[in-house]
Amino acid sequence: MKARKRIPGWKDKILFTPGPLTTSQTVKQAMLRDLGSRDVEFIGLVKDIRHKLLELGQVGPDEYTAVLMQGSGTFGLEAVVSSTVPPDRKLLVIINGAYGKRLARIASVLKIDTVTLEYAENTTPDLRQIEEALKTDSKITNVSVVHCETTTGIVNPIREIGEIVAQSGTGYFVDAMSSFGAVPVNLAECSIDYLVSSANKCIEGVPGFSFVLCRLSSLEKTAGHARSVSFDLLDQYQGFEKNGQFRFTPPTHALVAFRQALAELEAEGGVPGRAERYRRNYETLVVGMRRIGFKEYLKSECQGYIITSFLYPDDPCFSFEKFYESLNQKDYVIYPGKVSDADCFRIGNIGRIFEADVKALLAAIAETVNEMGVKLK
Amino acid sequence: MKARKRIPGWKDKILFTPGPLTTSQTVKQAMLRDLGSRDVEFIGLVKDIRHKLLELGQVGPDEYTAVLMQGSGTFGLEAVVSSTVPPDRKLLVIINGAYGKRLARIASVLKIDTVTLEYAENTTPDLRQIEEALKTDSKITNVSVVHCETTTGIVNPIREIGEIVAQSGTGYFVDAMSSFGAVPVNLAECSIDYLVSSANKCIEGVPGFSFVLCRLSSLEKTAGHARSVSFDLLDQYQGFEKNGQFRFTPPTHALVAFRQALAELEAEGGVPGRAERYRRNYETLVVGMRRIGFKEYLKSECQGYIITSFLYPDDPCFSFEKFYESLNQKDYVIYPGKVSDADCFRIGNIGRIFEADVKALLAAIAETVNEMGVKLK
Repeated sequence: MKARKRIPGWKDKILFTPGPLTTSQTVKQAMLRDLGSRDVEFIGLVKDIRHKLLELGQVGPDEYTAVLMQGSGTFGLEAVVSSTVPPDRKLLVIINGAYGKRLARIASVLKIDTVTLEYAENTTPDLRQIEEALKTDSKITNVSVVHCETTTGIVNPIREIGEIVAQSGTGYFVDAMSSFGAVPVNLAECSIDYLVSSANKCIEGVPGFSFVLCRLSSLEKTAGHARSVSFDLLDQYQGFEKNGQFRFTPPTHALVAFRQALAELEAEGGVPGRAERYRRNYETLVVGMRRIGFKEYLKSECQGYIITSFLYPDDPCFSFEKFYESLNQKDYVIYPGKVSDADCFRIGNIGRIFEADVKALLAAIAETVNEMGVKLK
Repeated sequence: MKARKRIPGWKDKILFTPGPLTTSQTVKQAMLRDLGSRDVEFIGLVKDIRHKLLELGQVGPDEYTAVLMQGSGTFGLEAVVSSTVPPDRKLLVIINGAYGKRLARIASVLKIDTVTLEYAENTTPDLRQIEEALKTDSKITNVSVVHCETTTGIVNPIREIGEIVAQSGTGYFVDAMSSFGAVPVNLAECSIDYLVSSANKCIEGVPGFSFVLCRLSSLEKTAGHARSVSFDLLDQYQGFEKNGQFRFTPPTHALVAFRQALAELEAEGGVPGRAERYRRNYETLVVGMRRIGFKEYLKSECQGYIITSFLYPDDPCFSFEKFYESLNQKDYVIYPGKVSDADCFRIGNIGRIFEADVKALLAAIAETVNEMGVKLK
């Protein structure tokens, strides 16, 4: 393949990644404004966003609240860990991928006592072990799990885990970073106390902040727990309630874009509408990849439609670096794998991408495999 | 005055605030792209930004490095405090305004032993007291001061303080949030180990991240100090050095805008060119405000050209809420005061605003004062 000459100002590559994602032109255009962060229009915008996020979580403002947090999704996760585990109590972290591990590391650096239940990256957690851990160790007051582990694309049974956690009376924290907005979830029905996601995932905004949906009765009990000023979730919430403002400078442009992204999500039929498009992307991808000869890392029964890990082909002609670079030259960005015990790469189905984009990617993949001389069947 | 009907989609208000600021149209237009955060173009962009920031600080990559940090300016400050004070050592915080106080609060929540030297908000710190504090307490290993205290607009003598701190062998941390890019500073000459500023201040980018200029020999000694994963400055630095990438999702759009903002700063003549415009804004403002009959809170000798605090007029007809609202209706956004012992409001001179904008603001202020029936002379 000849390296193509890149013309400056040409169109952006399509991002088949876990985020930041390809967003709509109208979401980006919404950023062509400068709003004062303490001005009335911006305060109204923040209020609307917080309200709309609760709707997406199928809960109301009497029981839940949405707290926006500057920074990346990880910052939102650290805010929850830092702010909600009481001193001298323990956090149980359920792990089956890199994001579960990262959460345990966050807690450990914050000097929070942590118990972990770790599973293979292609395996969902054992519910009985969770039940037992909670029965055995009464110091555990908080439990965390990742909804869709972006490491592999595995989807964890957050409702079933929620039932067990609720029975034990502990707080339940779900990292829904890469699923919220595209996988329907009712926070109350899943017994969730805290759910974190980010602006630049399935809601298709641009990166700059994350958000935490919090059960009010739980959040209100966390006074004095926060181990950081910036990440103090209760203080951030109280700031919003006091005057509608962020305590510290918010990413105003990312928030204006997010309002537009929420409107476009609604226009697409809300969470079910978006789920349908992503599922179609996923099905088109998997059928096409199997036809080319690729195999998925996960069994279909635990595979979500957000992101898919594919095994490297068993052929010495395959080099991921060359494969990636060649697709990149063709304007398609895929993602390296993150699985610890298998060689994988990942393809995301989320963002402003459609079945036609997936088909174009599949054609480019078939061409690339051919160019590399990789035999797949 | 009749409330004006607002036409949707009309032009934005002009922000005479400490930030987020009015930015150029071209800076905002730079955000009409979606870049992959681990893709080659974005990695190059981050590298260019980090390099350019060192140039603005008049230092080279052998001695210093620029670490970008997601979130607001406060997040960058917390990252420095959290990552650079050794366990069981002390931080000396020099305070003459709300931002100095906030820094002490950040340290206290992080359970870092803190010594404070506090001065009135219209007074610069006493250098002999700083020298004495450092001589007396050998557990102090880090000293912090705010360059331009946005509380009032006072400018602190960072070079003189730097000399004292350097003599004592302690680490020197300058919060240059609202001055960097518009007030010339040579980090090495001022003996600065860590300097923090933010994307949406004098460099005129959009909000979404802050940056820390770090002396390499100091940063490299901080292994194990960080009290947070997200705010681990050394780990963030090592991430950049390893593969040019952020450890966690960066605000890609804010970074593309920042590259454009840096190009526009250079086109304006760099820091001296920008300083000249801001100074002209400041002089036009102060001359005009005095003519209307307003008085500044600070004495001119310690007043910087970034932001100015004006005292409320001594007339019962004056109400800040009405004054603010009326200017807002006229599309000018000013800022409430933050001084603890005097009633003030603030007007910023930074962002993409010019002498003509300041004159237009002055005309609107004169009109508003007149409408309110406030007697000023």
